[in-house]
Amino acid sequence: MDSSAAAEKAAMAAMTEEERPVTYSGGDAPPPTQLYGDYAVIQSTTPAAGSGRTFVRVDALRMEAADEEGMVWVRGRVHTLRSVGRNIFLVLRQATATVQAVLAEGGDISRAFVKWAAKELPVETIVDIRARLAPAEVKSCSQGDVELSVARLYVVSRAAPTLPFSLEDAARGEPTGPDDVLPRVGRDTRLDGRVLDLRVPPHQAILRVQAGVSGLFREFLTAAGFVEIHSPKLIGGASEGGADVFTLDYFGRPACLAQSPQLYKQMAICGDMERVFEVGPVFRAENSQTHRHLCEFTGLDLELQITEHYSEVLDCLDGLFVSIFDGINARHSRELEVIRAKSPFEPFVYSPAGKNLRLEYPQAVAMLREAGVEQGDFDDLSTEVERKLGELVKVRYGTDFFILTRFPSAVRPFYTMPEAEDERYSNSFDIFMRGEEIVSGAQRVHDVEMLARRAEAKGIDVNSLSSYLDAFRYGTPPHGGAGIGLERVVMLFLAAGNVRECSLFPRDPKRLSP
Amino acid sequence: MDSSAAAEKAAMAAMTEEERPVTYSGGDAPPPTQLYGDYAVIQSTTPAAGSGRTFVRVDALRMEAADEEGMVWVRGRVHTLRSVGRNIFLVLRQATATVQAVLAEGGDISRAFVKWAAKELPVETIVDIRARLAPAEVKSCSQGDVELSVARLYVVSRAAPTLPFSLEDAARGEPTGPDDVLPRVGRDTRLDGRVLDLRVPPHQAILRVQAGVSGLFREFLTAAGFVEIHSPKLIGGASEGGADVFTLDYFGRPACLAQSPQLYKQMAICGDMERVFEVGPVFRAENSQTHRHLCEFTGLDLELQITEHYSEVLDCLDGLFVSIFDGINARHSRELEVIRAKSPFEPFVYSPAGKNLRLEYPQAVAMLREAGVEQGDFDDLSTEVERKLGELVKVRYGTDFFILTRFPSAVRPFYTMPEAEDERYSNSFDIFMRGEEIVSGAQRVHDVEMLARRAEAKGIDVNSLSSYLDAFRYGTPPHGGAGIGLERVVMLFLAAGNVRECSLFPRDPKRLSP
Repeated sequence: MDSSAAAEKAAMAAMTEEERPVTYSGGDAPPPTQLYGDYAVIQSTTPAAGSGRTFVRVDALRMEAADEEGMVWVRGRVHTLRSVGRNIFLVLRQATATVQAVLAEGGDISRAFVKWAAKELPVETIVDIRARLAPAEVKSCSQGDVELSVARLYVVSRAAPTLPFSLEDAARGEPTGPDDVLPRVGRDTRLDGRVLDLRVPPHQAILRVQAGVSGLFREFLTAAGFVEIHSPKLIGGASEGGADVFTLDYFGRPACLAQSPQLYKQMAICGDMERVFEVGPVFRAENSQTHRHLCEFTGLDLELQITEHYSEVLDCLDGLFVSIFDGINARHSRELEVIRAKSPFEPFVYSPAGKNLRLEYPQAVAMLREAGVEQGDFDDLSTEVERKLGELVKVRYGTDFFILTRFPSAVRPFYTMPEAEDERYSNSFDIFMRGEEIVSGAQRVHDVEMLARRAEAKGIDVNSLSSYLDAFRYGTPPHGGAGIGLERVVMLFLAAGNVRECSLFPRDPKRLSP
Repeated sequence: MDSSAAAEKAAMAAMTEEERPVTYSGGDAPPPTQLYGDYAVIQSTTPAAGSGRTFVRVDALRMEAADEEGMVWVRGRVHTLRSVGRNIFLVLRQATATVQAVLAEGGDISRAFVKWAAKELPVETIVDIRARLAPAEVKSCSQGDVELSVARLYVVSRAAPTLPFSLEDAARGEPTGPDDVLPRVGRDTRLDGRVLDLRVPPHQAILRVQAGVSGLFREFLTAAGFVEIHSPKLIGGASEGGADVFTLDYFGRPACLAQSPQLYKQMAICGDMERVFEVGPVFRAENSQTHRHLCEFTGLDLELQITEHYSEVLDCLDGLFVSIFDGINARHSRELEVIRAKSPFEPFVYSPAGKNLRLEYPQAVAMLREAGVEQGDFDDLSTEVERKLGELVKVRYGTDFFILTRFPSAVRPFYTMPEAEDERYSNSFDIFMRGEEIVSGAQRVHDVEMLARRAEAKGIDVNSLSSYLDAFRYGTPPHGGAGIGLERVVMLFLAAGNVRECSLFPRDPKRLSP
């Protein structure tokens, strides 16, 4: 238990300056006579129920937070430190909240204490502070109407004296004008020091939004009767064929990493699970160094039985995305504010209430040609053309979000259901945000003979698909589904510019660490 | 839109038997005059809004479900089919619900229709039925007080005439006695045909409970302020050292698959994310063919800052598991019933309200020795000894769930915090269900020098850990966490006996497909 202030004072008075050691060891709780220094490494030596100290979070620091002695315990990082005469001004940071703390020589605060603090507290050091809470006006801190008058200060974990980059520099957005020559930190440097970079509030806020999107995805689908699955990432054959696959040795047999849970979620449908979703890693050995490609990303996948028409899948996705967008705006307003303060962006426009725009492929081709873009009827859309289409749609329909249906069969995988009337088109779709594709989906071929025929037509060795094809031999419900790239959704909602900002530890052909 | 019954009758009356083709093509909706046959492959040729038919789910079939003509549309699988004279008795199954349907010659139902149905409907075939709903008593079906009087019947997707095994055989539990010589299906055969096996209600129910556990895990932690992360599975070095790691080529560099998100969730803590969790695949190239090992399983991981003592982690986990167990019992009573009907099991005993049992390692060793088990003070517990300990605990404390703390440092990874008073022990723990370990966790070493020292002492090349160690150089909060094996939790709660039953598509050294 914390001793009373009076007992502390008495003990202090009985000691000379020299008796007060700068560091000590032998447990987490310093003797009350020791007002500053380094803790021993915190090793759970307090009673399991704790030392009895109650820590107040920085974002909860207001006058009412003080105990009966007018004091608080706070743990936080030294965000900045400034010596002014015999005073030290600290900004203490915990998560994204900041508060000013003042260590002033005089009374119990010795010159040695102040000197020690000036020398031994590199920024990012984690400290425990016992302080008197006082009203103040500190505009530069999140806790603007209080400050801490430091009585005791201990180092929990000391930062190295030099950081790879300063958080302040890393937090700067685009230059505000030609006179703004303040230093910035390049993305690669930031990602090399990702643990520091994550402490920059707008950067961590992006990942908190990312977590929100995963959660909203699952909530919506669970409420709609979907069951979560965890499909294997280690598989015997390439999941969708093609070259962009990581291979490995599996107890003497060749194996590869799943490029999507596609075949497995379909097999779950064949197993009468009816509606399934998965949130999990997806691996692509694609040697592309673009703003939107990762070699490992988080797939939000879903698959469902349909009764008659793949519009049932589209309706589900439309509702899902509206729920996600509404949810980000409602639950993450604070994160959005923090992100905007660094990198302002246009709010994402979608139709919150009703049905979002659905365009057919031939309509899109016509719109593009009208705008002078050369686009073949049955060719895939390049990234550049997709972006142009997004602009045209924004002008004509006023939305950043739309569904493009009826893709040419030639540009879709073998398991995509062709249109009955015109096999050159397929019952498939992509979904776009700000002119970039974030979802690919379709009705799937559920008829085993049609499936084998179409795999063959695409030049895929049907033998390599045997366990997949077998799944379709015992009565298969018509079904469809889609795969969503989580990091892309976050990137485009926030107009973050690069998918690496939206991945905790991104992986691309050049980056495998940290 | 569906034509009226009167129009159908008139059209039928105008046709001869020969005019009624057995199959047809050209769209999803058969002409009203055609009472039976194969659909063309359902290819979304109805209007996007659907054909106007309203399908009633089998589990919703009661007299009130009929339309104004007393009829319903139902889609389901032929579960069983029996010809009796000029009648055919079908059991139709949708998910786990079943209903009897009768096709009786006479009136509009021609002999050709009945003959076709007898010949063309292998079990597991998916059919659409238009039927009159009639009261009945059918004890063997889940819908026991109605039956379907079939008026029209179409094949949506036909099953192969022979299945690899019968669902009925696969659904049988342990023999009920020496006279029970009914056939069973071995696990390997079932897993080879997993899509069929998943249609067996108790088998699918296990995976629905699994999905429930993931959901409960996330709900509890999200409410407790945790943020979901997705850490990379492709990493530059072995995540925890050791040999049990899958390796691969990453654009010309050696890489491996993460054996746990351990190092990354700690790095997220270093990045001030404060409390994080992850649900994701974990890869172990362990050549063990036991009832509880998988080469790929789903890890439920969490990591949190602690203030003073790793009991903060234990308290969190205790609350988490109680919430998961309570949640399974509350939300999945139907699944539990279905599972129990096949494989009865003792209810899982834990302390729903209060704190669950915490034992210290030396106490466990003493209990074991008292029971005549040889166990070294600082040796790891074998699977067999763990089980014995579980039995002793059950007898003495009446619980299937307990936390064992203070594991010897020698049997824990290098990043485990040793005890300050006695380095031979550590601030670590395992959690047990029915005598099997399902969780491993600890306070972690947050001091970079101690961390490097301990890695070296365990013979780990410190250079291979550089990006991990770097994360600890800039001030690190004390923290701890744990990793939970999802499939094991499900297996032990349900006493399912083998972890493969609790994985959608299990992976072990011998199994890489389907």
